[in-house]
Parts: sequence; structure tokens; C-alpha cells
Amino acid sequence: MNVIYFDNAATSFPKPERVINAMQNYFKNIGASPGRGGYKNSINAGRIIFETRSKLKKLFNAPKEENIIFTLNVTHAINYSLNGFLNAGDHVITTSMEHNSVIRPLRFLEKYRNIELTIINCDKNGILNPDDIRKAIKKNTKLIALTHASNVTGTVMPIEEVAKIKKENGVVLLLDTAQTAGFLDIDFKKLDIDILAFTGHKSLLGPQGTGGLVLSDNIAKTLIPFIHGGTGSKSEIEFQPDFLPDKFEAGTPNTIGIAGLSSAVDFLEEEGLNKIRNHELELTKQFIEGIIEIPKIKIHGLKNIENRVSTVSITVDNIDPAFLAYKLDNQYNIMVRPGLHCAPLAHKTIGTFPYGTLRFSFGYFNTKEEVDFAIKALIKIIEEGE
Amino acid sequence: MNVIYFDNAATSFPKPERVINAMQNYFKNIGASPGRGGYKNSINAGRIIFETRSKLKKLFNAPKEENIIFTLNVTHAINYSLNGFLNAGDHVITTSMEHNSVIRPLRFLEKYRNIELTIINCDKNGILNPDDIRKAIKKNTKLIALTHASNVTGTVMPIEEVAKIKKENGVVLLLDTAQTAGFLDIDFKKLDIDILAFTGHKSLLGPQGTGGLVLSDNIAKTLIPFIHGGTGSKSEIEFQPDFLPDKFEAGTPNTIGIAGLSSAVDFLEEEGLNKIRNHELELTKQFIEGIIEIPKIKIHGLKNIENRVSTVSITVDNIDPAFLAYKLDNQYNIMVRPGLHCAPLAHKTIGTFPYGTLRFSFGYFNTKEEVDFAIKALIKIIEEGE
Repeated sequence: MNVIYFDNAATSFPKPERVINAMQNYFKNIGASPGRGGYKNSINAGRIIFETRSKLKKLFNAPKEENIIFTLNVTHAINYSLNGFLNAGDHVITTSMEHNSVIRPLRFLEKYRNIELTIINCDKNGILNPDDIRKAIKKNTKLIALTHASNVTGTVMPIEEVAKIKKENGVVLLLDTAQTAGFLDIDFKKLDIDILAFTGHKSLLGPQGTGGLVLSDNIAKTLIPFIHGGTGSKSEIEFQPDFLPDKFEAGTPNTIGIAGLSSAVDFLEEEGLNKIRNHELELTKQFIEGIIEIPKIKIHGLKNIENRVSTVSITVDNIDPAFLAYKLDNQYNIMVRPGLHCAPLAHKTIGTFPYGTLRFSFGYFNTKEEVDFAIKALIKIIEEGE
Repeated sequence: MNVIYFDNAATSFPKPERVINAMQNYFKNIGASPGRGGYKNSINAGRIIFETRSKLKKLFNAPKEENIIFTLNVTHAINYSLNGFLNAGDHVITTSMEHNSVIRPLRFLEKYRNIELTIINCDKNGILNPDDIRKAIKKNTKLIALTHASNVTGTVMPIEEVAKIKKENGVVLLLDTAQTAGFLDIDFKKLDIDILAFTGHKSLLGPQGTGGLVLSDNIAKTLIPFIHGGTGSKSEIEFQPDFLPDKFEAGTPNTIGIAGLSSAVDFLEEEGLNKIRNHELELTKQFIEGIIEIPKIKIHGLKNIENRVSTVSITVDNIDPAFLAYKLDNQYNIMVRPGLHCAPLAHKTIGTFPYGTLRFSFGYFNTKEEVDFAIKALIKIIEEGE
């Protein structure tokens, strides 16, 4: 029996076949460390890294190739930004829909580095009222840290409005695109984002171990490096170089992973985000429509496919999400994720704390048949539970 | 024409074929995020991570599986340690043979966090006198940060003596095993190391994007997390969990890379470090003996194979190392690395600053024929240059 994978908000699976082929090619034919030697294979490794920056620059409409910084994952990218940007006394505004990748570093900085934190409550559907951001801005507000879309409800945040507010007030915007990069069209320059954090292994369809930052030229200048070490450049100086991307990248990068990501971005480019998005939202619509009339099921968040990504959180009356996930896996080989999804405040916001939700997140390689099968399986489990 | 790869101190190449096979298996058959769901593939991903910890625990004789922390690379591992351990007023002792992965974060902490730094000079062969460490210890000395072997000269440091000194003085030892893990036998518990930083992609023969820390139980308790974010555990709390390994790992790990590393450690186990080491040191001996009589060549560091790893740095009178490397690559397809190797102080120590050295670093898959060919090529280039 084939497995059905609906946990694409955690990591996409499967990936395009070409991703592993690109990794294999690097593994077998290149292998060297980029920027650490002048010989052919090292130069070829460096070229892979540069080309991937170039593709991501195009995808996000970033200022320049070197403004793309590679990190282990999006969490690291967010940590680099917050730690390198915030000082004691600075005020940060964020929302109740954030992932722990934003909340935990901010709570740490609040407790140990004396930053000031305001968390704006979103409504029961996870919707942010941008006016609440505007009202929260104070003299010492330095940063707005905002998820582009909730990993629990799939709700897309009003980033155009927030970008306008931050501009009017001279505040910096950090956008966490963990759930949107490779799914929504993101125009870094047009939206006037200052710091964009992305992951490579979700909608970008690359391997785990990849992610990074897009920095505006201004931020690139003022941000203090978080990680220090060898860069293969300016090796004579005992401090991190001050130019991009070396200022924010230290040690050997995940070249094989980046080679995979590079190929994944080619795939996205060839298919087109629009086609990918339409397919995933079609499945989302099919799923919502298939369960919305079932009295015991509650869908948390938006019930349509406007302003959302392909993630749907549900609860079922009197049945623990963990039990539902277990049954779906065990009896139907359907892989979904129960619980808090590393976003406790989001569950407090939508009223599903502490048990969380059962989350279905659809990917480009899922089919209508799979969604249909899952709806039927879910109904059967609920009936049996009665 | 086949290429000859002698830059194994930067990253090992090739890797055992089974490494990419393990990555491919994860890519095709598992794919999920570990510890983020209860379904089969997520559990299988979690099992890969746990098994790799278990293998590394055995390899290093670490206290427990969860004391192995995965990071992007050894530089990150060192940054986690220094930043999470040192406070203003703390004194750190290190050596002049360190890589920029140690020097740069320490210089940063010295400048911006008011730590106090003493750098012990090693001799012209890169040899550390442990008594110099002893003499440098002060009341506020909290840490000794020491490379296990120089990435420039290959000189192995007297870590038994340093471990004794640190124990007598109640100081913590951070050992950078970038050049030794997978080559030398390292007994974490017996040597009484507190923090061991390792890379996965050099002598451990795993893919780039892997590395980490081994922490003693004491350090694990006191070290403050450097990266904060989702762990798939204790998701209801807005701070990093205080248990291992989650305390020091945030965000999705490089599961595919760790799957490769796991298989690489199996390879090391099956071949045996002793056999691997003997082969690499045989090549080192052959290389040194083949060039030691050439008047224009100077070997920097030890001339025998005691207390060293398989890395040899040379200079040639009146010829820039970069030119030699270019010629070797361009005319003979031999890949070696010229320059400072991210260790400026080491070159000041051995007298090769600012041009650096030409570095040959041999790996398990190199052959006697390759070394012979390289010696002849080197002699020919020198003759032509005359």
C-alpha cells in the first residue's frame, strides 16, 4: 500500500527527482569545498553556490546575489537576524501566530538581553489586524517580526499593509517565509522587506539542511555577524570580513544540500509557482469542502482558499488529534501531524491549546485521489469512534 | 585524465559510495522531518538521527547519545560553545595554531563582550609546550580552546597534558577536532574533555552540512543555548527545553546529511581507524621522503609521521604557493590548496605569513601512485621555474 504524505508544512515529500540527481552529481564529480581553493573542483563547488544565490535572487527579487545568506535552516536565519540586530532597550512587535522559531529567540532576548516585546493577538481565524501593529509602535520600536503565513491555520498575513506601516515609522521588517517561499510570489524589493528568512526544504522543494536570509543593503551593513569563523576570504584578519556574503557565513557550507536546492529552484521555475499554487489550493478546497458539513469536525482558520496556503488544521469533537493521526497512519498509511506544531501561542489564539490540532498540509505531488481517500478515512475513524 | 585530490583537510573526497546511497534511501523512502510527527516516516527519520548519535557516542566514547549535538559545521559548534559559555570578565587561553573558527569568535567576544584572551605561541613546527598553558592560567581562566591538530602543519597537540592541566585547575577544555575526528582515536571520557567540536565531512567521511558537539554532562547543564526555536518537544513553552539534545538543536536538522554521516561512520567502523590512519601516514611519509632532499623545498612542521595527521605544508624558494597550486591543477590535475588555510596566526608562528604554504592533505582513497606522480610534477614545475 502506498503512503499518503500530508505533512508538507513540516517538510515537503517527495522532492523532484532532479534534486537528488544534482546532489549525486556534486557528490561524485565535484565534492570539493567552495571558495577554499583555486583548483577546478573547488571553483565548480563555488559556482554551484553562486548560481543558487543567483536563482534565489531572481525568485525573491533580492537586491544582489551576495545578499542571499545560506544557513542550516530558517530558525537559524531568524536567530542570526534577531541577535545581530537587537540591543538592550529595543522594542520588537510580533504576533500571536508566530512559530517558536520566532517566539523562543525573542523570549530569550527579552529575559536575558532586556529587549522589550509586544505580541499582537490575532483573531480566531489567525487574522492579523494591521492597525494593531500600528498602535503598538513606540519610540523604541526597532523591529516587526512577522510570519508570512501561519503554519497552523495557513492564514496569510497582510504583509503589504504591515510593510507600509513599518516604512512610515522607520521600523525594520523581518518576514518569516517558512510557509510561503516557493508557494507565494514574494517580491523583496517591491514589498520593501528588510530581512527575509526562508527555508529550503518546504515549498522550495530542496533538501533539509538548507535555508537562509535575504538582506537589504542597509541591513547587510548594520547587522552584526552572529557566527564567526573561516570564510576562505581575508584569512589574514582575525575578524569576520565585512563584505557579503562572507560577513554572515562561516565554516564550510552545506554544498551538497545547496546543489539540491539549486535544482529544486529550477523545477519551481519550470513548473511556475502559479501552477503549483493552483494545484495545492485545489486540493485544499477539495479537502475543506469534503469535511465542512461533518458536524463533529471543526476547521480552524479560513474556510475558503483566499489568503491562505495549503495547510488545514482541524479538530474533532471528543477525539484527541494524536489519536486521529495514529489511526490515519496505522490503518490508512496517511501521514498527518497532530499537536501544537511548535506554535503554542497560535493555538491559544484559535482556541486549541493545549491539545492542538490535526494538521493536513498538501504538496505539489499530492493528488485528488489521495485527498478523497483521506476524507473517507477520516469520516470512517470518526464513525468508528462513536 | 583522472584528477588527483589532495585537499582532504578542507573536505574529504571522494566519500564512500554508501554515503550517497544512504542519502538517496532517505530521500526516496523516508523524507520526513524527525521528531515532528508520530507517523512512520517521521519516526524513521528520528531513528536515523538517534542511530547516528549512537554511533558517534561509541566512536568518541561520549557520555550518552543525547550529549551529541548536531550543527551545520564545526565552526557553528565552536560558536555555540564559546557564546554559550563565556561571560564578561572570563579569561580564555588558546594557541597560535588555531583556525579562524576559534580565533574569530574569540576576537569578537574579546572586543564586544569583554572576555580576556591569551594566545600561547607554539614553536616553528607548530608544537605547543603544555607548560605555557599552565603558566597562563589565572584566577578568572574559564576555558582552554585547543585544536587537536593543526590544519596547516598537521602537528598533533599534546592534549593529554593539557587535559591534566585543565583538570588540576578546574578549567574547561574545548577541543577542536576538525582535523582529527575519524583519524585519531579520541576517548572523550578518558581524556576528560568537556566540549568536543567535530566536523562530519572531513575524516569522518560524511557529507558537508554535518558536524556537531559532544558535551560532558556538566557542560550540558550549564551551557546556555545559542540558537532558539522549534524542537518538536515541549511546544507549549516559549523557551528552549532544558533537556538534551533539544536544548541545543532548533529547527529542522539536516536529516539527509546526517543519514549520510551515519553510513560514513559505519564505513570507518568496518575499515578501522587504525588501517585508515596507517594508509594515510604511509602516503605522508612517502611524500615527505620524496621531497625532503630537494633544496628549494621547505617542509613546515614535523618531518616524520609521529604526532601528526596526513597534512603537509611546504613552500618553495621564490615561487608563490598560489602559482604552484595553479600549475599542479592546470598541468597535472592535482588539487592542492595554497595560502593561509584560514589560520593566519599559524602562519605567523611557522614563518609563512602572509603568502602561506602549499598544502597537501592525503585521504584514505589516495594511492602511492598518486603521491609519486605529485612528487614528480612538483619537481618538474620547480625545474621549469628555474
